[in-house]
Amino acid sequence: MLSLDTTNLEPDVSGDWIASQSEVAAAADRQLAARNGPGADFLGWLDPEALTTEHELDEILRIADALRACSNTLVVVGIGGSYLGARAVLEALGNDGPHDVVFAGQNLSARHHRDLLHGLAGREVAVNAISKSGTTTEPAVAFRLVRDYMEERYGAGAPSRIVATTDRVRGALRQVAEATGYRTLPIADDVGGRYSVLSAVGLLPIAYAGVDIRELRRGAIDCARMCETDELGHNPVRHYAVVRNLLSRQGIRIEALASFEPRLHYLLEWWKQLYGESEGKHGVGLYPSSVEYTADLHSMGQFFQEGRRILMETFLVIDADEPEVVVPAGDSRDELSYLEGRPMAEINEAAYRATATAHRAGGVPNLAIHLPRLDAYHLGALIYFFERACAVSGYLLGINPFDQPGVEAYKKEMFRLLGKPGFAATEPSSPKVVRRIAFSAR
Amino acid sequence: MLSLDTTNLEPDVSGDWIASQSEVAAAADRQLAARNGPGADFLGWLDPEALTTEHELDEILRIADALRACSNTLVVVGIGGSYLGARAVLEALGNDGPHDVVFAGQNLSARHHRDLLHGLAGREVAVNAISKSGTTTEPAVAFRLVRDYMEERYGAGAPSRIVATTDRVRGALRQVAEATGYRTLPIADDVGGRYSVLSAVGLLPIAYAGVDIRELRRGAIDCARMCETDELGHNPVRHYAVVRNLLSRQGIRIEALASFEPRLHYLLEWWKQLYGESEGKHGVGLYPSSVEYTADLHSMGQFFQEGRRILMETFLVIDADEPEVVVPAGDSRDELSYLEGRPMAEINEAAYRATATAHRAGGVPNLAIHLPRLDAYHLGALIYFFERACAVSGYLLGINPFDQPGVEAYKKEMFRLLGKPGFAATEPSSPKVVRRIAFSAR
Repeated sequence: MLSLDTTNLEPDVSGDWIASQSEVAAAADRQLAARNGPGADFLGWLDPEALTTEHELDEILRIADALRACSNTLVVVGIGGSYLGARAVLEALGNDGPHDVVFAGQNLSARHHRDLLHGLAGREVAVNAISKSGTTTEPAVAFRLVRDYMEERYGAGAPSRIVATTDRVRGALRQVAEATGYRTLPIADDVGGRYSVLSAVGLLPIAYAGVDIRELRRGAIDCARMCETDELGHNPVRHYAVVRNLLSRQGIRIEALASFEPRLHYLLEWWKQLYGESEGKHGVGLYPSSVEYTADLHSMGQFFQEGRRILMETFLVIDADEPEVVVPAGDSRDELSYLEGRPMAEINEAAYRATATAHRAGGVPNLAIHLPRLDAYHLGALIYFFERACAVSGYLLGINPFDQPGVEAYKKEMFRLLGKPGFAATEPSSPKVVRRIAFSAR
Repeated sequence: MLSLDTTNLEPDVSGDWIASQSEVAAAADRQLAARNGPGADFLGWLDPEALTTEHELDEILRIADALRACSNTLVVVGIGGSYLGARAVLEALGNDGPHDVVFAGQNLSARHHRDLLHGLAGREVAVNAISKSGTTTEPAVAFRLVRDYMEERYGAGAPSRIVATTDRVRGALRQVAEATGYRTLPIADDVGGRYSVLSAVGLLPIAYAGVDIRELRRGAIDCARMCETDELGHNPVRHYAVVRNLLSRQGIRIEALASFEPRLHYLLEWWKQLYGESEGKHGVGLYPSSVEYTADLHSMGQFFQEGRRILMETFLVIDADEPEVVVPAGDSRDELSYLEGRPMAEINEAAYRATATAHRAGGVPNLAIHLPRLDAYHLGALIYFFERACAVSGYLLGINPFDQPGVEAYKKEMFRLLGKPGFAATEPSSPKVVRRIAFSAR
């Protein structure tokens, strides 16, 4: 299903050393399974069969089919965990069908929103607004714009094209949906945004695009079963959690997740939220960063090879052949004759192996997560692998991997600056003298 | 032209402390201007008027016009500094005209290349191959594929649609171009890839898309003039270099460049190469990372607020109004009534200010680089600002900011793995026992 290559962790982290952590990792993982550790109210994702039942899958597919029947473009309005998972899956698995998904509500750029609305001309549009509260500024602003667009364009037919994924009972979006007549899907109370991709939050947009959400779920279920063993040598989740924690204790400060496939861009972004938001608290945590090779070997490669030695690297490698593209014959002056007729997948794999070896030699301990191929089943397994490893890793680190108290800080300050009722009179976070220096050409 | 807001550096770096570094910064900058510091053979970029003369601008525009006349899509084949600058400028300034630029040669993904060639159907195509040597694997492989495509499609007319930007005299691409009859533009010996955007390397694709390259150059020239003063309070380049070096000495390990505009994505990527490749050597350097707000406030925001305190943050802020988009009236349950009728630019600016204040309060010293607006002139100035500040910063750090010896390591290992003549018999970088552990569902 998936494999870890830990060759290039030597000598920083030996196999014996990993093995010595078996009991510690088991204790953290058992605390998770027993649901009695920090943040245990947010473990709705832990059992993928319970997270989304067969009955709920049917409901999601029914709604997706209804939207597919009346549209060819779904605008997903959401931020953070309300869009990254779906975007990661859709980009990774490609989307050659007639149903496109576009994403809105992730920034406050005027130009971005103007271009988004312009881009809907000539398309048949449906909307999925995703927010537990309905009051998060970015998606709420975007939803006002998109809702206006839909009402102007479809009139009384607009509500039937809009689905709200939101709290079962409370919140602004729930109220608006019920008052206006939108269909709804639930966001569970016990699943945080960054753990929600295999729930209705992620699955409706994914199903809309035509990806097999049953296969995605089946991969997660199989990965969860794989995690039941206490043998560390057969438990990839505990293995990964132990490695990154041991390296963190050795002074490693940054974990870079590296891929050699451009279509994994948003999977790396999803991973950054998962790990950054789960671990970045109380002054600890590895800083999650992403590199996309081989492009970034020609930009960040120098730093990885010889810069400050605070890096570990995790390669995400897809083993299976892509559609076969071979290097064509040609003018030999480019020194590529030795590659003629060889598939690009072989060259790409050599690039990965060369990078892993070179970075190890340069002082960057690294490991690889191999997937046999990139399909819904294996992607579901990988998602669960990262989620559960993140939780175990957080417990090993001594923090609550399921809260995110720091995310409120900028929001409160923004509400104060903009004069939101109830926030206008609050104190600024840190009053100070402004030092701004203007430079100008003479 | 541009301004720095250093308010949120307090108390880590006070204004007095910055001022105290005036002579040190001046010494580093004078060494640069005197062209007698490390890497002085690579200062072709230092004087933007000499980097690309009026005569050379005319030649670039003439070739761009010829390509525009026969095509609507330019495939730029290049990696690292041979594409990032042009891509950054084109994305930042938008491209509403009929001439598109697509980029190839940045990875070894079979699917990516298949999709690229499929995407050319129905378009009139021209090609700009950019490589000093012509033997870098990624662009050389891509160029073989693209050249085959052009020859199949345009036959004897193909060469007139292809421009090679390459060494004036030596190298495989130079020889191929002369043998086949491609037009050529020169890559100077004294300009490294990451400093080349304002030379023919970047300017041909930029001119093809219809951006005013004279304005871009004029901005750089004005910024260079601004850098002539020894008064630190009027010299933004020295100011920025001093700040990041002082923070580095305080234990800061990561500099995050943050923007609030999605269209600055590739400018952040260009900056990462510039700083990572220039400073990441001899075990030193700030790790360059990028965050795109407000999206990443909902993913990396938690880490910035409360994770390990090894971060500094540089905000890249565009002050001018975008096309005006205002928050429409709507159902008040989303708590947005207080924003109705207000422009998104105002809300986006409040998000920036709130983030800067909140992160400062959380222990992340930060500064902002403000541009009055995002046009070719100001972007040219910003590019020069970052280039020169990087050089001064490298001298302050005690390294040669113009070499990149570490980039060769993975290439050598890859050539060995793939059996390239001359490399097949070399030793692997670090022979070792493979530890790979396969996990599978039961």
